[in-house]
Amino acid sequence: MLSFADFEEKTINRTELFHGKIIDVFLDDVSLPNGGTAKRELVFHPGGVGIIAITPENKMLFVKQFRKPLEKVILEIPAGKIDPGEGDHPAVTGARELEEETGFTAAEMKHVGSMYLSPGFSNEMLHLYHAVELTKVENPRPQDEDEVLELYALSLDEAKKAMKDGLICDAKTMYAITYWELLQK
Amino acid sequence: MLSFADFEEKTINRTELFHGKIIDVFLDDVSLPNGGTAKRELVFHPGGVGIIAITPENKMLFVKQFRKPLEKVILEIPAGKIDPGEGDHPAVTGARELEEETGFTAAEMKHVGSMYLSPGFSNEMLHLYHAVELTKVENPRPQDEDEVLELYALSLDEAKKAMKDGLICDAKTMYAITYWELLQK
Repeated sequence: MLSFADFEEKTINRTELFHGKIIDVFLDDVSLPNGGTAKRELVFHPGGVGIIAITPENKMLFVKQFRKPLEKVILEIPAGKIDPGEGDHPAVTGARELEEETGFTAAEMKHVGSMYLSPGFSNEMLHLYHAVELTKVENPRPQDEDEVLELYALSLDEAKKAMKDGLICDAKTMYAITYWELLQK
Repeated sequence: MLSFADFEEKTINRTELFHGKIIDVFLDDVSLPNGGTAKRELVFHPGGVGIIAITPENKMLFVKQFRKPLEKVILEIPAGKIDPGEGDHPAVTGARELEEETGFTAAEMKHVGSMYLSPGFSNEMLHLYHAVELTKVENPRPQDEDEVLELYALSLDEAKKAMKDGLICDAKTMYAITYWELLQK
């Protein structure tokens, strides 16, 4: 079994290419453990939270929205970026996004798992929570100004059909549906 | 139900920030369907392939490698970026990466699903294949020069423990394990 030193790539030089509101982009020159060097393109992201929200009627909540990188409208579980100050408390982000995007609150936010989405170039981590015991909020917090969303509640069969049709097509949402399916076995 | 026009964000201006070997980064000014404008930070990626490879001993193959964005060593299913010319044939990428990273070939590459990893800012799509009927290759293609990998074969219980311990921590690999678990139910 190889040790950490047999794998580690040390940064020789780091160049900042872009400092954005969502992502920061860097280019590293690294020294490889076998003696060579290589370039590494890196995107740093504060991480996000996705919420598995199942209604008392056993339907899962989804939001429909336009995703600019794809130039299309897709269905995803409610989700959002971790805001400054929320970093150590992704459950807080999850509760905020659940209310903003669906108008529901939960009695408990149960941690399901945390996953790096694209570890080859990005450190973005998605924390997945199961929102237990949903309650409709009378005056929910408003949605973000630059987001246009539409809310859907789907049964497991409907969600699997949307996945087959390509309307549900992102990793966190597909994982959420598989988690839900395993819960019912 | 809202129509596509109620969601679509039109690009007013696009600026290229970085043209890399793996990613291209752009900043868009978009007009929102509600009349406002917003900035969109975009990372374009050619997409990749992940391979669910289960040995005749019912163990799944994983590769251990250093991931610079995380500054740590993690266990992932064999995977790789789609090379120019392979774009329309991700199964070809999958077969190539399987051989390079594990020394196995498969009788069939069965498409399991395709998922956008981070649709908020990136168009990267990961195509997941189940490599059916593995055979050890006598003289496999060599690994990429700038990659240091170590191969592991884990049972489902061992894989779930590695996930709990945080050594398995990326979306495609966690989805692969859940898929494997569902296969056995």
